[in-house]
Amino acid sequence: MKDPACSIEKTLEIIGNKWSFLVLRELYDGTKRFNELRRSIEGISPNALTSTLKHLEQKEVVKRKAIPTVPVTVEYSLTEKGQSFNSVLKEMKKWAREWG
Amino acid sequence: MKDPACSIEKTLEIIGNKWSFLVLRELYDGTKRFNELRRSIEGISPNALTSTLKHLEQKEVVKRKAIPTVPVTVEYSLTEKGQSFNSVLKEMKKWAREWG
Repeated sequence: MKDPACSIEKTLEIIGNKWSFLVLRELYDGTKRFNELRRSIEGISPNALTSTLKHLEQKEVVKRKAIPTVPVTVEYSLTEKGQSFNSVLKEMKKWAREWG
Repeated sequence: MKDPACSIEKTLEIIGNKWSFLVLRELYDGTKRFNELRRSIEGISPNALTSTLKHLEQKEVVKRKAIPTVPVTVEYSLTEKGQSFNSVLKEMKKWAREWG
């Protein structure tokens, strides 16, 4: 039992907190800008979104792309690692439909 | 997209926080007492464990059973709803094995 136990902790460490789940869900729909994310995640503050995105970028789950427009446009999207987290989100949705 | 979005939030509201995932993982192995849970979840404080168990009990994910020994023995186990959350934990383990 030790190894699988470990891996839940590892997942939670990579994903972080509640906001991360919601950011990943939004980005699974496609590339989004900061303000698009902010509007689509109810209750998230700009600071919480900034630190969540930084954390996920550092964990290589999310990619940040700055486009040199004036003002600069910053887009966020999922890496392959982030894409594959969708299997977890799918199970969460299924569970909520059944039990929520 | 609105409904599935909603259901991730619903799941997170029921499950709560990081500790809940770890409590559910432990209880999936079978019924445990408070102190057994405390020992098996690294870093959890008694207060955090108490409030996590209360939250999960209120959400009908965990059952609490008091056995009238002296001193009283309290056992925690998963409800059917809690059992079925294992499909989410399984996907998290799989993801961590691949990407963690």
